[in-house]
Amino acid sequence: MRQGNLFSRIPPRLSEEIFETLLETSGFRLERIISEGQATPPGQWYDQDTREWVVLLRGSAGLRFENEGELRVLRPGDYVHIEAHERHRVEWTDPQEKTIWLAIHYREKL
Amino acid sequence: MRQGNLFSRIPPRLSEEIFETLLETSGFRLERIISEGQATPPGQWYDQDTREWVVLLRGSAGLRFENEGELRVLRPGDYVHIEAHERHRVEWTDPQEKTIWLAIHYREKL
Repeated sequence: MRQGNLFSRIPPRLSEEIFETLLETSGFRLERIISEGQATPPGQWYDQDTREWVVLLRGSAGLRFENEGELRVLRPGDYVHIEAHERHRVEWTDPQEKTIWLAIHYREKL
Repeated sequence: MRQGNLFSRIPPRLSEEIFETLLETSGFRLERIISEGQATPPGQWYDQDTREWVVLLRGSAGLRFENEGELRVLRPGDYVHIEAHERHRVEWTDPQEKTIWLAIHYREKL
């Protein structure tokens, strides 16, 4: 993993989302996620032990937090910080083009 | 820092590069860098105590490692991993448009 490109090695069609760890230490894990129309299944929430900083780099997505009324629509460059155990779900991702995310999962308090 | 956009809050003209810490823990520091034609001064090298994972998201740049003959040209999505004390320099950044980088500086061995 000396060099790579976040927008390369993308399969033409995705039946499922792709989660790929790019870098991992005891302090954090860096992950690329590729979506194509997938969403969190109805009624399900992400409830993570780790904190997450995530940026959407291509495509678009709708992100919902359980404690918020409004859906957040993410466009390229948009990032969001998610606390541990802050329940959230991806309501939709762009069905027309691949959505590329970069996420940092980490444990420590800021 | 609940939400933001990596491509917003960019001044119209940059006399110097902008370095902005987005997130910091004892394990890593996440930084946005904005360049507009700047380069490492002639004869100078970065020689960092920390390891760095860096991705170029917009613009372009030429990155040189002291121990490599060839300049690496970085385009959007290109990332590179730089070891601690691996001497390197930015030979050029795009003079026509802003170059946006996202860097993770960290200490631990992988």
